[in-house]
Amino acid sequence: MIIVMAPGNTEEELQAVIARIQQLGYRAHVIRGVERTVIGAVGHEDKSPLAVVEQMSGVEAAIPILKPFKLASAEWKRERTVIDVDGVTIGGPKITLIAGPGAIESEEQALEAARGVRAAGAELFRACIYSHYMTPYGGTDSTREKIEIIRRVRAETGLKIVTETFSLDDVETIASFADVVQIGARNCQNFVLLRQVGRLRKPVLLKRGMSTTMREFIMAAEYILSEGNSDVILCERGIRAHDETETRYALDLNVIPVSRLQTHLPIFVDPSHGTGKRHLVAPMARAAVAAGADGLMIEVHPHPDRALHDGAQSIRPSELAELIGQLRRVAAAIDRTI
Amino acid sequence: MIIVMAPGNTEEELQAVIARIQQLGYRAHVIRGVERTVIGAVGHEDKSPLAVVEQMSGVEAAIPILKPFKLASAEWKRERTVIDVDGVTIGGPKITLIAGPGAIESEEQALEAARGVRAAGAELFRACIYSHYMTPYGGTDSTREKIEIIRRVRAETGLKIVTETFSLDDVETIASFADVVQIGARNCQNFVLLRQVGRLRKPVLLKRGMSTTMREFIMAAEYILSEGNSDVILCERGIRAHDETETRYALDLNVIPVSRLQTHLPIFVDPSHGTGKRHLVAPMARAAVAAGADGLMIEVHPHPDRALHDGAQSIRPSELAELIGQLRRVAAAIDRTI
Amino acid sequence: MIIVMAPGNTEEELQAVIARIQQLGYRAHVIRGVERTVIGAVGHEDKSPLAVVEQMSGVEAAIPILKPFKLASAEWKRERTVIDVDGVTIGGPKITLIAGPGAIESEEQALEAARGVRAAGAELFRACIYSHYMTPYGGTDSTREKIEIIRRVRAETGLKIVTETFSLDDVETIASFADVVQIGARNCQNFVLLRQVGRLRKPVLLKRGMSTTMREFIMAAEYILSEGNSDVILCERGIRAHDETETRYALDLNVIPVSRLQTHLPIFVDPSHGTGKRHLVAPMARAAVAAGADGLMIEVHPHPDRALHDGAQSIRPSELAELIGQLRRVAAAIDRTI
Amino acid sequence: MIIVMAPGNTEEELQAVIARIQQLGYRAHVIRGVERTVIGAVGHEDKSPLAVVEQMSGVEAAIPILKPFKLASAEWKRERTVIDVDGVTIGGPKITLIAGPGAIESEEQALEAARGVRAAGAELFRACIYSHYMTPYGGTDSTREKIEIIRRVRAETGLKIVTETFSLDDVETIASFADVVQIGARNCQNFVLLRQVGRLRKPVLLKRGMSTTMREFIMAAEYILSEGNSDVILCERGIRAHDETETRYALDLNVIPVSRLQTHLPIFVDPSHGTGKRHLVAPMARAAVAAGADGLMIEVHPHPDRALHDGAQSIRPSELAELIGQLRRVAAAIDRTI
Repeated sequence: MIIVMAPGNTEEELQAVIARIQQLGYRAHVIRGVERTVIGAVGHEDKSPLAVVEQMSGVEAAIPILKPFKLASAEWKRERTVIDVDGVTIGGPKITLIAGPGAIESEEQALEAARGVRAAGAELFRACIYSHYMTPYGGTDSTREKIEIIRRVRAETGLKIVTETFSLDDVETIASFADVVQIGARNCQNFVLLRQVGRLRKPVLLKRGMSTTMREFIMAAEYILSEGNSDVILCERGIRAHDETETRYALDLNVIPVSRLQTHLPIFVDPSHGTGKRHLVAPMARAAVAAGADGLMIEVHPHPDRALHDGAQSIRPSELAELIGQLRRVAAAIDRTI
Repeated sequence: MIIVMAPGNTEEELQAVIARIQQLGYRAHVIRGVERTVIGAVGHEDKSPLAVVEQMSGVEAAIPILKPFKLASAEWKRERTVIDVDGVTIGGPKITLIAGPGAIESEEQALEAARGVRAAGAELFRACIYSHYMTPYGGTDSTREKIEIIRRVRAETGLKIVTETFSLDDVETIASFADVVQIGARNCQNFVLLRQVGRLRKPVLLKRGMSTTMREFIMAAEYILSEGNSDVILCERGIRAHDETETRYALDLNVIPVSRLQTHLPIFVDPSHGTGKRHLVAPMARAAVAAGADGLMIEVHPHPDRALHDGAQSIRPSELAELIGQLRRVAAAIDRTI
Repeated sequence: MIIVMAPGNTEEELQAVIARIQQLGYRAHVIRGVERTVIGAVGHEDKSPLAVVEQMSGVEAAIPILKPFKLASAEWKRERTVIDVDGVTIGGPKITLIAGPGAIESEEQALEAARGVRAAGAELFRACIYSHYMTPYGGTDSTREKIEIIRRVRAETGLKIVTETFSLDDVETIASFADVVQIGARNCQNFVLLRQVGRLRKPVLLKRGMSTTMREFIMAAEYILSEGNSDVILCERGIRAHDETETRYALDLNVIPVSRLQTHLPIFVDPSHGTGKRHLVAPMARAAVAAGADGLMIEVHPHPDRALHDGAQSIRPSELAELIGQLRRVAAAIDRTI
Repeated sequence: MIIVMAPGNTEEELQAVIARIQQLGYRAHVIRGVERTVIGAVGHEDKSPLAVVEQMSGVEAAIPILKPFKLASAEWKRERTVIDVDGVTIGGPKITLIAGPGAIESEEQALEAARGVRAAGAELFRACIYSHYMTPYGGTDSTREKIEIIRRVRAETGLKIVTETFSLDDVETIASFADVVQIGARNCQNFVLLRQVGRLRKPVLLKRGMSTTMREFIMAAEYILSEGNSDVILCERGIRAHDETETRYALDLNVIPVSRLQTHLPIFVDPSHGTGKRHLVAPMARAAVAAGADGLMIEVHPHPDRALHDGAQSIRPSELAELIGQLRRVAAAIDRTI
């Protein structure tokens, strides 16, 4: 931590800051500059008790030197995390595809979608049992029935299941049938839920919040890791930028190389939610692969025209098959496979 | 809902859209313009089944005419909501002050803070029993002890208590001693939690998420209202804008007049979290009152230099007293009181 | 400047950085921390040759300690700048009002507007001779005629004139009849134009760009000051935030206290462009005054229903008179006048 | 244009709006809905006189149906624009590379950079003669000398020259030696300058402003096109989003597929300015190509450690050669070449 004293600070204020730094167990190095006096506080920074120094009289700013996360960092663990999802490998040279509809509508729809995405080449099935979004005036939540449908999809197709959890009281239920538990963008900083899934022994797919910074996003993963669950998959799904006339969100691919440099965790991209537009899915999916994404999550519906949710961003199984063909070529161009 | 057909759409596509609109129970009015054909779908719009039309072949856009919220709207309920918090009135001509520390640190700290804010003129006490934010490496959560401290604060000072709930399993606990249950910014779109507090018979203070639009913010309130709890207080606390060099967030006062025009709910402002800087609290608090805020939430700590959390944005009780003096004058200038 | 070495940097890299710092005329203080080595570079920071150090091998980050601006800073000049506009004082305890239409449409419209804003209590007249915005398919620019109209407005009403300059070749023309030359938000970082108006001997009203940070905004003023023109008025007019459903931009009042702390320049606010909605002008104008603004710029049209530009955000002269009445009361509450 | 009447509007207000629409030369179709009355105004929308209707009494909103641009639109001109830059083709199946340093520092540096980028496979040379950015305390502008250097670079290497113009009075000078005239991000909405380059007979590379929406960006191109210059190259260079801790801007690749759908103009991407970090350039460049970009602009310096500007985002010629190798493979994967 670097502490910058305000212009015109008194010697007394400076000494008080130094005393506080030492009392917190750090060493204080004072540098008297031409226009500012600066103090370097030396010691382990990870628990940040030094932050309180910023509030002291005569202090202009306290600038942390280290990033706030540790377990998630590439410094802490150099080899990249590879996750085994019941035989499907995530995070290695092979790029993984998750596909499926925005919501389970019926057994027929779910099975048709699952067979389609399986045939196209996806290995995981996106299957959400609720949809609370957009309006409180939703339908009934026939949860148990939907879980049964998902179990049948899994049994018949062999697809691994990715399902979102919304709250503490459904985490156990979802973990009982899902292979990967998803945390949605709106819960990215729901720290209670993050800790709860940190105590699971299931991989967690963590979606980035619409306005979490990259650092906060990695910190959200740190909450899960710090509870002992090391199988965290990061997933970019679009940020809230200044332009929502042409895309629903702004899919932010910068997070791919940044997270690959700073962390050891796999990074996925969801171009369907990220753009909200069906015709933008393919180019942005190709771009994500070219930028180094470890996987994609794509919304697929057998009949997007009739989808109850998110039809405007869903593609057909046949379109997924064609897209995967394109993605295989792009993956090969960077020495990866799908 | 206005449906805009794409340029070059076929007559067959147009007829399919019309048929779908009618099948959903709406009447379709076709306007054939010079460059586009447009369909007005007439009927009750509140459940929005029409959204699916946007995905149909030949459709360029579907533009809703009505706002998505109803119970929260000023159209639905013309008189402004006034909430009684055990004798303290929120939402009337009198402006209400909530003040207190970022976290309960000890009985001594809590009581000193409470006596200070009481003496300064605040009527509600901000008292959070957890702090999950910023780092997973927090302290121990001695919850029961903190609740006891809060009960003593309430008994001794008569201040009403505002406490944040983080998850389903603490809602009941918090409702057992708090007068107002707070939903934090990071949970603003945690729809499960919103519904849960919608089933309480306690006022709810709902903080705006850092990137929720004003419309989504009001929709979040709609979730609470739709479960039967009509005592919702909106609270602006800073959005994530493009500049975080000088303020931690950008306190967005525009939401005050917008929410007063569109809803009947009281609107509060938290200039402490909204700016993150102690020296910005007073001018932004004055501005909030002048813009029409019904109340303020201000972080006050007896010794900000020693605060464990958020000290940089906390003011002292004596500074709160001085600020309230200023605010009384501004309130009087717009014919309100504090 | 603080230079943070990357983890695992070599001693050779460290020595190279130290040598470079010394060669640039600075002293280097090395602090070897537990997880990072940090170098404090001591010397005058204002010309920032040290920035190049950030690119050197083994360097993780270079963190400036000082703000990049100097002439605009409150450190450099402690007393606040007061500008005399031909008898009208800007930047003192009295708050100044600029009002007028979005565009000069005709002599009749201009005079009617001017008489109205004069009667309401404004002292400066906003009078733009072009409007290039929004569409390239604008009308003809009968510039000379409009200048004549403005001269007549000035002669008849005594209002001082504020006119926007768009480019180098009209700066002289505009300076010949305007009392204050305005730089629009879209030119806030047009450095050539900033330098040009820096060589004028006329006050400059500088509007903040929609996405300039506060620091960049003050730096834009620094360009003008550095050419010798010390009469710069800052003007906030709305930033591009994530929500443009309810307001056209997000009027960012945080800049008022921030600029008052960091600079000595007067700060104005334009709630008309900042919100884009007529019914938001009054509450946001009151808020701006309460937050400490030194002046306001308000769009006024004698017949907003018939305005060729920006009618949706224009108020009538009678509404301005009523608003100024409100603002006088708010100003009095903070010991200022209008 | 769709006009939505406010709830509770009077019949008189409705008739006044209809009369105004007709007076402006449009036909008015009234749809009386359950909760709102809506009017469709039918006629050519391109000059938007209808916007004034929004300000009328009783009107809630006026919603345009058509996009505001015409000449730039893919509707207006279906075949994609291909630009010939003295033998180098831009906008066809071949992807074009512009590379060069942030600023011309010396003849030696410029020639070394130019030979390097030429050898690596770039066809255009980025060569700016000024650098006004960041601080007003820049060096001297030895413009004529720099132009001579650029002429020699062009003569020796055969690279075509891309140079930024900053203002009206240097447009002619720059057009005299540059093959492509660049408009920088900060001038993206400098409408006077846009019109000026619209009168040139040289291709224009138009950089997107940091906070211009995609629609405003295309509208900026429309200004150039409307003056008769049809050779406009769009260039994304990073937007100002909420996170600038890890990247200087957020490179927004969404604009690639959006602009390819909505316009016929070539779209380039500048990953160097867009991210501000050298190690992010390669992955984001690959992503841009995979998303469909027609070209890239990359900052290359023979010795980034010693660069006077933008060294942190510059790569070496040898790194460019390696990157182009990667890009060739990605381009081949989508059936394009470099």
